[in-house]
Amino acid sequence: MNKQQTALVLIDLQKESNFGLIQMDDVIANTQTLIDACRRENIPIIYTRQINRSDQAGLSKDEPLKEDDTPYYYASHTENIEIFDEIAPENSDIVIDKYRWSAFYETSLDLMLKSLGVEDLIIGGVVTDGCLMTSVFDAYFRDYHVHLVKDICTSSNEGSHMAAMMIMANWVYNLEVYETKELIKRFNNESYQHWSCDRPDSLPFTPETMRESYQQLQPRKEVQ
Amino acid sequence: MNKQQTALVLIDLQKESNFGLIQMDDVIANTQTLIDACRRENIPIIYTRQINRSDQAGLSKDEPLKEDDTPYYYASHTENIEIFDEIAPENSDIVIDKYRWSAFYETSLDLMLKSLGVEDLIIGGVVTDGCLMTSVFDAYFRDYHVHLVKDICTSSNEGSHMAAMMIMANWVYNLEVYETKELIKRFNNESYQHWSCDRPDSLPFTPETMRESYQQLQPRKEVQ
Amino acid sequence: MNKQQTALVLIDLQKESNFGLIQMDDVIANTQTLIDACRRENIPIIYTRQINRSDQAGLSKDEPLKEDDTPYYYASHTENIEIFDEIAPENSDIVIDKYRWSAFYETSLDLMLKSLGVEDLIIGGVVTDGCLMTSVFDAYFRDYHVHLVKDICTSSNEGSHMAAMMIMANWVYNLEVYETKELIKRFNNESYQHWSCDRPDSLPFTPETMRESYQQLQPRKEVQ
Amino acid sequence: MNKQQTALVLIDLQKESNFGLIQMDDVIANTQTLIDACRRENIPIIYTRQINRSDQAGLSKDEPLKEDDTPYYYASHTENIEIFDEIAPENSDIVIDKYRWSAFYETSLDLMLKSLGVEDLIIGGVVTDGCLMTSVFDAYFRDYHVHLVKDICTSSNEGSHMAAMMIMANWVYNLEVYETKELIKRFNNESYQHWSCDRPDSLPFTPETMRESYQQLQPRKEVQ
Repeated sequence: MNKQQTALVLIDLQKESNFGLIQMDDVIANTQTLIDACRRENIPIIYTRQINRSDQAGLSKDEPLKEDDTPYYYASHTENIEIFDEIAPENSDIVIDKYRWSAFYETSLDLMLKSLGVEDLIIGGVVTDGCLMTSVFDAYFRDYHVHLVKDICTSSNEGSHMAAMMIMANWVYNLEVYETKELIKRFNNESYQHWSCDRPDSLPFTPETMRESYQQLQPRKEVQ
Repeated sequence: MNKQQTALVLIDLQKESNFGLIQMDDVIANTQTLIDACRRENIPIIYTRQINRSDQAGLSKDEPLKEDDTPYYYASHTENIEIFDEIAPENSDIVIDKYRWSAFYETSLDLMLKSLGVEDLIIGGVVTDGCLMTSVFDAYFRDYHVHLVKDICTSSNEGSHMAAMMIMANWVYNLEVYETKELIKRFNNESYQHWSCDRPDSLPFTPETMRESYQQLQPRKEVQ
Repeated sequence: MNKQQTALVLIDLQKESNFGLIQMDDVIANTQTLIDACRRENIPIIYTRQINRSDQAGLSKDEPLKEDDTPYYYASHTENIEIFDEIAPENSDIVIDKYRWSAFYETSLDLMLKSLGVEDLIIGGVVTDGCLMTSVFDAYFRDYHVHLVKDICTSSNEGSHMAAMMIMANWVYNLEVYETKELIKRFNNESYQHWSCDRPDSLPFTPETMRESYQQLQPRKEVQ
Repeated sequence: MNKQQTALVLIDLQKESNFGLIQMDDVIANTQTLIDACRRENIPIIYTRQINRSDQAGLSKDEPLKEDDTPYYYASHTENIEIFDEIAPENSDIVIDKYRWSAFYETSLDLMLKSLGVEDLIIGGVVTDGCLMTSVFDAYFRDYHVHLVKDICTSSNEGSHMAAMMIMANWVYNLEVYETKELIKRFNNESYQHWSCDRPDSLPFTPETMRESYQQLQPRKEVQ
């Protein structure tokens, strides 16, 4: 990871996202720590925001509406679309509004990253099995090397978080998975732990073996 | 589903895909049945093929290579990239070659579908948690109404198939899930069973409840 | 033209664009007239804005910079990126920020138009031979029927405006060309004049015949 | 120009394109010379082909059809879609089929170029004011440095060729324009002549000054 060619992308850490996601407080606290570390390293920070326009323009097919015909979720006229206060963007950060789950779909994210010379993408956010996962796959299709920070990702249910993590690990070649504190060790050129795959589809599971397989995704490969 | 605005898209049912996927024979047999039904209904049939050029041009980042520097999987100079004989395309079918997991990424699939006036997409193929799932999300982003045929999808392990099915059901609004024989009943204007969601993120699970949650995805909502 | 499936797209009518373009005052006055007519017809109005971020993120390759390293043109920290006051957007309008000449390149324009059910695109703006022309071609690639309003388009020099108009007329099948007042007649179901092509590449020219060829593009085909 | 990061892209040099284009024989002869030089330098060669499927799938809106409902131009079932024999691709070359004027629109061209590490794009083909020009703009949007070879480009009329060349020169920052023989001198590290812009919109013209302005585009800036 060449820090001059790295960016941090945070997916949909918006007030609206506080709809019962597991351990959201931890996600916010870890994100805060990671943002601070990235600022110290001059790693650009890019936030995405899911936006459903209250006038319905650009809504996904079958997006749920309220009785007043405004979107049920992430409505543009509400405070809820803002990033959590604790991790709010600074003026020098980049904020990308998006209208579909993937942060790359018909947004300027890719051209922003390319102009910044980014090759390594540090990524996290919510929900693991929705906007985060589809954004990770789209990053991979565009040839970014993806570094996934697992403790800044969460979802509404334990199973889909675990499954989405393993699916990404199985199909995004060369994915690296970290916890925040280990990634920061890497920034500091200290030895750190991470998970990286050695072959595609390396984490098979059944419901009965799922917890055990997921344990293998624990970042514990020591890198000096 | 207006049959004049419907197409069948089959993801990567190629000889190479026979790498130990669960019940592949059933998938092929069901696909054959579905193709026949679509031909009777004049529903266009579109096949996708994963291609890794043997000269390495266009390969995904970190695509595994053999010792002779040709791609380990889906290599363009091998017979393995062909569709299974039992379900091979006819001259009038459309075959889309693709270089990333999603069938929409930098291919002509979307313009083909639009020119055919397609709004309803019947889709299936392999692997459930890879090319199929990323293609389904991309279809949804482009405002297609997705009809997923679960018994023509499979993966290398039971857990990732089940999880990917539930993740799609949770995040693709208005997804409908069928078994082949039920979808054909729908073609015939007979009563049929399917699963459809009534709200986003409706199938939470843990490893312990996963089999039970997945049961809910069984197509059993009766439509007259 | 089904008015329920029509939108007006105005390309880059920003204060910055007043850099010596020919008859810009007329363009603004005509645009004002057209906007008023579209509002009466409930035709959605979409503005695009060229934006060069002052921190350089997302700039085009080789974008000119000032001595202080901010962009020379369309710099995001300046008042110049705003739409001209006379034709400023209302709250209910859609404003699309863009980072490349074409209004479709890595923006949400296409998904906005699709969600609005748009099939007919009324378009104009500046400069004819740059952002306007590349946006028109991109609209055509996406299967929109393009209605080009010639008296709300201009460029810095007469030749490139005339040439770009003829190039679009030659290669955008079924392009229709209007003056503002004639298009409004069409809205009112009155007889109107326009230009439409009957075959590709129908307006050949040399420098010596250019004025004469361009005359043929005058909207004078009478439609009852 | 780092030759290790360079590719040659040839737009639509197909038999069908011989529909009365000016000096097509010269274009083919020059292309042959350029291809030979690129092969000597191990510069990858990519051909594009315009394809209109004879079953109409994927056709542009309002694409002209024959009485038998097959496409009038570039019909997939005809020999005419093949590259001219004199410059036919070899097995190791890349051929990209396309369905819209721009070679980048819903094709794999960009991912091919990226995987080859291409930053400098040598480009030419037909017609100057259609597929060539829209492909050049799309290459520029994607941050390629464009090297345009003017004597392998042509169109059906002198005016549109001249105008399209000047429009590209005005709006593609840092465009370089060569004749074949001068570009080959550059390959050989000899001194060569080319045109390059020093500012945007630098070649204004009227019909009366068009020939004179176009003269300025002659490659005559000597580079040692």
